[in-house]
Amino acid sequence: MPLEIPDVVIDRLPVYYRLLSRLAYEGRAVVSSQELGEELGVTPAQIRKDLSYFGRFGKQGRGYSVQRLTEELRTILGLDTRWSVVVVGIGRLGRAIASYPGFEGQGFDIVALYDSDPNLVGTDVEGIPVRDYRTLEHELRQRPVDIGIVAVPSEAAQGVCDTLVQGGVRAILNYAPTRVVLPQGVELKHINPILFLQSMTYHLMRSPDRAGRPADARREMPA
Amino acid sequence: MPLEIPDVVIDRLPVYYRLLSRLAYEGRAVVSSQELGEELGVTPAQIRKDLSYFGRFGKQGRGYSVQRLTEELRTILGLDTRWSVVVVGIGRLGRAIASYPGFEGQGFDIVALYDSDPNLVGTDVEGIPVRDYRTLEHELRQRPVDIGIVAVPSEAAQGVCDTLVQGGVRAILNYAPTRVVLPQGVELKHINPILFLQSMTYHLMRSPDRAGRPADARREMPA
Repeated sequence: MPLEIPDVVIDRLPVYYRLLSRLAYEGRAVVSSQELGEELGVTPAQIRKDLSYFGRFGKQGRGYSVQRLTEELRTILGLDTRWSVVVVGIGRLGRAIASYPGFEGQGFDIVALYDSDPNLVGTDVEGIPVRDYRTLEHELRQRPVDIGIVAVPSEAAQGVCDTLVQGGVRAILNYAPTRVVLPQGVELKHINPILFLQSMTYHLMRSPDRAGRPADARREMPA
Repeated sequence: MPLEIPDVVIDRLPVYYRLLSRLAYEGRAVVSSQELGEELGVTPAQIRKDLSYFGRFGKQGRGYSVQRLTEELRTILGLDTRWSVVVVGIGRLGRAIASYPGFEGQGFDIVALYDSDPNLVGTDVEGIPVRDYRTLEHELRQRPVDIGIVAVPSEAAQGVCDTLVQGGVRAILNYAPTRVVLPQGVELKHINPILFLQSMTYHLMRSPDRAGRPADARREMPA
């Protein structure tokens, strides 16, 4: 396996995995790069190139073995492993994340929630205890955690991320709409809905019945 | 401008825009592809290739004009336009989205929230009214909306998306952790935290002090 796989390829692997899991569930034995491409909205050439980083799964003209490719992706992505997660910031967003139904079944165990609000500390969300943020670093050192999810206001995000890293956390998913700087070797992803919306407005701008209004137009004006 | 710009490139443009806006705010006049690459964690070659889709912004050896590139990206992405948004599903997640502070300043106006719970209809979140989901399609036809944000349970997501499309919505941001199928020409993005976590565990699996535990290990066991 080559050492340097582009991050954009790695980011697509979970999407391949999810699709292949569904095909396996539906009893499919083989799938072509053509079909994978149609399902995912990318070219078959892109599919073949992405998967070629991880060895030769497909046979020319026969397609990919759904089972074998699913299993390989499961191993590559570490999905046979269980990962412990803490969520910091138990406002509306943190609560929504803590009660998200998908984590456990995918190997992610939310082991604790943290907040600095004394009215929240000692309560729980869906049975997961809310602990005092001031004890976070100490508790991480006592019991290491793999992943931190940050759902605090922007101005608190850098400090929370620093504390997580001090406590040994190596991967952070940041929902705060701000930039944070982390040391090399710590994985960081942002979930910022604005960035998703902005890449969609690129397409809306170019659609035949163009939507949107000039910035100086009032809402009541015809588009 | 070429007609077909890869979606992966378009998805990166808002990230470029955000970084360039910050550099402009800091008073920077020019920036190199090297520096952009370092800030964004991609190669300078990738930066040059991405931006080359949109014309020649940089001068060999001199870098990019921060102001000119920011303005071009603003136009390309439709950020001079105001976009109307509805949020469907006002549970914890929908409330968190509706109270997210970043939308308005970026040109996204949340004009209404919708839910089917009669206890919620008629209330408001941060001053935005919660309306009856059963009136959604009718109201969209009366007053067109550009973007729908879906924050309903998985089993309701397809139906909600269909209703939005029937009402003329051309772009949907889906937070429900399920696949939905939409007609050609409707933009669809998913925000699924699992996919973000899974691309981070790829890296965690390969880190020197490897974290995580085999799926059959108990939490109490040493890693």
